[in-house]
Amino acid sequence: MSNHKKSLQEHFGANHIYRVKFSSLRKNSAEILSAINTEQTSISSLNTLEGDGESATLELNLFANSRQAALAALETLKSGGAEIQEFTDLVEESRLGGIIEVKSKKKIESLTDLRMVYTPGVAAACKAIVESPEAVSRVTGICSRVAIVSDGTAVLGLGDIGAQASMPVMEGKAAIFSEFVGISGVPIVLDTKKPDEIIETVKHISPSFGAIQLEDIAAPACFEIEQELDGMLDIPVFHDDQHATATVVLAALINAVKITEKKPADCSAIIIGAGAAGYAITKILLEYGINNIVVYDAGGAIYRGREEQMNPYTQEIAELTNPNNISGGLEEGFKGRDIFIGVARPDIVSEDMVSSMADKPIVFPLSNPKGEISVEKALEAGAAVCADGRTINNALAFPGIFRGALDSGIKSINAGMKLAAAQSLASQSEGNMLLPDMIDRNVHKKVAKAVFDAAAKS
Amino acid sequence: MSNHKKSLQEHFGANHIYRVKFSSLRKNSAEILSAINTEQTSISSLNTLEGDGESATLELNLFANSRQAALAALETLKSGGAEIQEFTDLVEESRLGGIIEVKSKKKIESLTDLRMVYTPGVAAACKAIVESPEAVSRVTGICSRVAIVSDGTAVLGLGDIGAQASMPVMEGKAAIFSEFVGISGVPIVLDTKKPDEIIETVKHISPSFGAIQLEDIAAPACFEIEQELDGMLDIPVFHDDQHATATVVLAALINAVKITEKKPADCSAIIIGAGAAGYAITKILLEYGINNIVVYDAGGAIYRGREEQMNPYTQEIAELTNPNNISGGLEEGFKGRDIFIGVARPDIVSEDMVSSMADKPIVFPLSNPKGEISVEKALEAGAAVCADGRTINNALAFPGIFRGALDSGIKSINAGMKLAAAQSLASQSEGNMLLPDMIDRNVHKKVAKAVFDAAAKS
Repeated sequence: MSNHKKSLQEHFGANHIYRVKFSSLRKNSAEILSAINTEQTSISSLNTLEGDGESATLELNLFANSRQAALAALETLKSGGAEIQEFTDLVEESRLGGIIEVKSKKKIESLTDLRMVYTPGVAAACKAIVESPEAVSRVTGICSRVAIVSDGTAVLGLGDIGAQASMPVMEGKAAIFSEFVGISGVPIVLDTKKPDEIIETVKHISPSFGAIQLEDIAAPACFEIEQELDGMLDIPVFHDDQHATATVVLAALINAVKITEKKPADCSAIIIGAGAAGYAITKILLEYGINNIVVYDAGGAIYRGREEQMNPYTQEIAELTNPNNISGGLEEGFKGRDIFIGVARPDIVSEDMVSSMADKPIVFPLSNPKGEISVEKALEAGAAVCADGRTINNALAFPGIFRGALDSGIKSINAGMKLAAAQSLASQSEGNMLLPDMIDRNVHKKVAKAVFDAAAKS
Repeated sequence: MSNHKKSLQEHFGANHIYRVKFSSLRKNSAEILSAINTEQTSISSLNTLEGDGESATLELNLFANSRQAALAALETLKSGGAEIQEFTDLVEESRLGGIIEVKSKKKIESLTDLRMVYTPGVAAACKAIVESPEAVSRVTGICSRVAIVSDGTAVLGLGDIGAQASMPVMEGKAAIFSEFVGISGVPIVLDTKKPDEIIETVKHISPSFGAIQLEDIAAPACFEIEQELDGMLDIPVFHDDQHATATVVLAALINAVKITEKKPADCSAIIIGAGAAGYAITKILLEYGINNIVVYDAGGAIYRGREEQMNPYTQEIAELTNPNNISGGLEEGFKGRDIFIGVARPDIVSEDMVSSMADKPIVFPLSNPKGEISVEKALEAGAAVCADGRTINNALAFPGIFRGALDSGIKSINAGMKLAAAQSLASQSEGNMLLPDMIDRNVHKKVAKAVFDAAAKS
């Protein structure tokens, strides 16, 4: 089964949606419109703005699989006699000026308002904190603010694109925090990639926040940065790409195992990718009770005794996984496995590899924006359950995990809290779906509650 | 003339407003209510919530000059037979959970919304910046975000109270930014007071912001931090306590000089305080053409040849001011001066000092929350114009200055922009008022326009 419906947007991707306004002679309209419904571009909506018997002004939304394709469609329209009046990139338009803002919760409409918000009234709040530091959670917003920190080194499928180019992702996270769980996310992108400078900087700004979300920082630096900061600070530090991803993978896996009537302890798994996500997924699967795992990275299978391309984290993986210490290629790795999880790069898994897996294999090709194998091919090759990064989205996990952690006042997010989040997500999905509806605010509330309860127990 | 009306709030301060709900016998009510209208506490509003012929439940708002005074009033009520049902600190209540929040500008109500805001749609915005870095001003909110940075060393009249205790002030600034000029202010309080660490930290987070507002950082560290950062970064760095204060002082002075029919070039001034505000006020008065200035600090008059308690900034003041190189006490400093500006501490200026000034003296005792001399005493002692920190409030200047600077895209806020802001404020005040209405959004818009125009000229 595939876990999502195919839409125009999914065919063309959501990156390229344009609004085109043009006028043309009525007798030409049908022809030029059909000329832009191609493999590369498709009309998703069409309105006549004005017109008479002879000519009309039309506005249409156009999906395209690239900007070039959209520009080519414009040329097609023009050569059919249309006069282009507007061509707008809707994705860019939707982000104009960024997608978040800091707002005052109080209107300032009189001097009295101003004197409560600012001097002299503000002194009372400062003094309350001086007198008892825990008042900070009452009279400031610190405990519901999360710094979303990135150095821009591992952004989506784009890689090391730098601090400012990563800002749209950080703003997206902040928008999700705000919309789903009422947390104030503050994007902080850094002009340094040095782990010690990142650690120092986050430490210095940490009194401003209730928690730190590390984001899109490349492995292995991300591991060191998270461990150091989490040990150093008395607020939670959480690397999203590791733990939120691992949490959602586990949630989907809990349901996939149920659907395929497998037993977790009997399952074997192959994971491709030993970066942030691969490392954390490995750890959470072990935690969950799946012991027979082999992990591959750019150096091939990770096994005890491998000497090339090792770091302390691949070393740890070698020690914790691969009970039979296999060292062969992907073909060997896939053979007879129940579960495949890919967090590496597009198109590196063949249909033969999927066919060689155990009965009713579970296949999660999660590389973004394109999986290690397409869902269609995996299903054709015999996958019993297949879902890619569009379904297994960390936005299902991080809002509730942070809300629960902040509400509990815990100093660190532990394994029990992540397991609780995964179990909550798994239990909330309906029918044969692997995961619940990301848009449903109640889903995030329930995850927060589960995480809060797990924190209270620990 | 005094520049403000006396209100209950001003008599008692805005720090102590309480809501009290209680029930009492009707026959006792008048007596117990009059018992709490004292020098220390006063009823500002009163409502009967319910009642019959015999007893009633009342709710009142109580101004007090301290929390103890409010608690004493409660005891007075009780001993008069009232039963207290609620006692709420309204200032604290108004700040519960902080007074700002980060909000998404887009509703996320469908998967399509989510895919525009987050993956995969967000990749288009990232790529736009990778392709041309200046796209950052279009597709992110960086250029309308200002970091409000403090180490908590010089907060209001409270001094070095630490990072988290200073947060209410930073949130207040952010609320003002949001309400007055639509800027997203992001409070960043630091766990370090070392200038080099503050500089490094701000540098590392600077790609996240369109400008940096330094706030409540003690002198002389504030000077070094601002100069280094402003030279290092290609976005404006502006120490509010210096320049916003100096800008508003100059605006008020422009009008005070007009009211008293003095000529700026003929005016002499005494400034007490050579910290952040004193230094910047000295510089802006010189810029404006007032040349005969003497500045006092804890070491007395600052003069060429003074050897005690000097730093590079007092050295600079010694070289730029005090043409007659006077070195005596405050009595000598005040004698015959046209203008007094205090940015030091309460109650250090006597009526005799004011009386010894030139004809129609201008007196600005700006120490917060209580001036160097009270407005009443200064007027009695012969001040022609007197205004304290309640009137001369930097919230008049910083919103418009930042809005204008961000809109202009300038890399540094120069003297011409501050002068333009002061002149705009001065020209907008009505009648005999020194300054325009802080609450009026148009005032801030006009300041922004003046600053923008000055930036364009420079």
